[in-house]
Amino acid sequence: MGKVKTKFKRPPMILPVSLIGANVEGKPNFQAIAWFNMVDYDPYLIGLSSERSHYTNKGIKENKTFSVNIPDSTMASVTDFCGLYSGEEVDKSKVFDVFYGALQTAPMITKMPITVECKLTQTIKLRHADFFIGEIVGVYIEDKYLVDGKLDMKSIDPLLYEDGLNKYWSLGEFIAKAFDIGKKFKPKIK
Amino acid sequence: MGKVKTKFKRPPMILPVSLIGANVEGKPNFQAIAWFNMVDYDPYLIGLSSERSHYTNKGIKENKTFSVNIPDSTMASVTDFCGLYSGEEVDKSKVFDVFYGALQTAPMITKMPITVECKLTQTIKLRHADFFIGEIVGVYIEDKYLVDGKLDMKSIDPLLYEDGLNKYWSLGEFIAKAFDIGKKFKPKIK
Repeated sequence: MGKVKTKFKRPPMILPVSLIGANVEGKPNFQAIAWFNMVDYDPYLIGLSSERSHYTNKGIKENKTFSVNIPDSTMASVTDFCGLYSGEEVDKSKVFDVFYGALQTAPMITKMPITVECKLTQTIKLRHADFFIGEIVGVYIEDKYLVDGKLDMKSIDPLLYEDGLNKYWSLGEFIAKAFDIGKKFKPKIK
Repeated sequence: MGKVKTKFKRPPMILPVSLIGANVEGKPNFQAIAWFNMVDYDPYLIGLSSERSHYTNKGIKENKTFSVNIPDSTMASVTDFCGLYSGEEVDKSKVFDVFYGALQTAPMITKMPITVECKLTQTIKLRHADFFIGEIVGVYIEDKYLVDGKLDMKSIDPLLYEDGLNKYWSLGEFIAKAFDIGKKFKPKIK
């Protein structure tokens, strides 16, 4: 019993999932991506990994903008649809109502609870993926989720993705405040 | 009513949270980090962002190795502790029982359900953070979570982190299989 080295090539992990939006040849396209996260602050930068051959990459390189659209848990089916089929084979430009922000070329999905527009600042060529880094220019939220400018994540009910085993999950319960509960922790020094 | 541009500088998001492990001057140190994700495959690479001044960065640069340790939801307090205090001020080397894998210098936390050892392959200097990219060399899992080599994420009950609003959450319910449920989706073409 205990810790064993497994045959897993990567850790099973719960990740946020997004639809990354880009205009490709003038039309909005959306790709499901879970390999993204914040990478720096002041200004805040998002980094995302997308296989170089993907249709979306063309649009990000073309316009130097992209969007990050966070679905809620009722949107598993349409999110998965945008992960299954490439913009090369399926025209996804009519699947969603779309709006644009200050950047004008980063298509955002009107009905998704949180959408972000980003300006491409750096592209790092990895072996199979382009790692795009973009500066956040605007964060848009459905106003029904904002109470006095604050947001309750549970009411948004974001869709989560299990990397490795390919499952969608919902968010559970609030556990504790971060940068807080640890103040009471007293390590047992061995 | 509808989508509004907010004052948020970054999107509130649910992220996995990890303790990133590195030996600093020969002693294990652990730092809570939620800004990490997969960035490439074959071989699988993890990218993580850590503010350049952080103590852990010294160790990653020194040994060119690091570990990623995934806590379960009962470990919020000790995880938060490792996020609150720098290795500069608190010796975290005795907080956990630690083991090493093939790389020998990436300290992994015995009692955390999933641990990963990584070999540093690239460091990208961002404005405030080092973005470390590491190749996954081993994925270790508590054997009680493995049934016929498979894993049930719900039984692991990983700790999740809400970036932006600084809260810890648990995992909710299974919703659907990815790369599957979207096959039945028929877009209403507007």
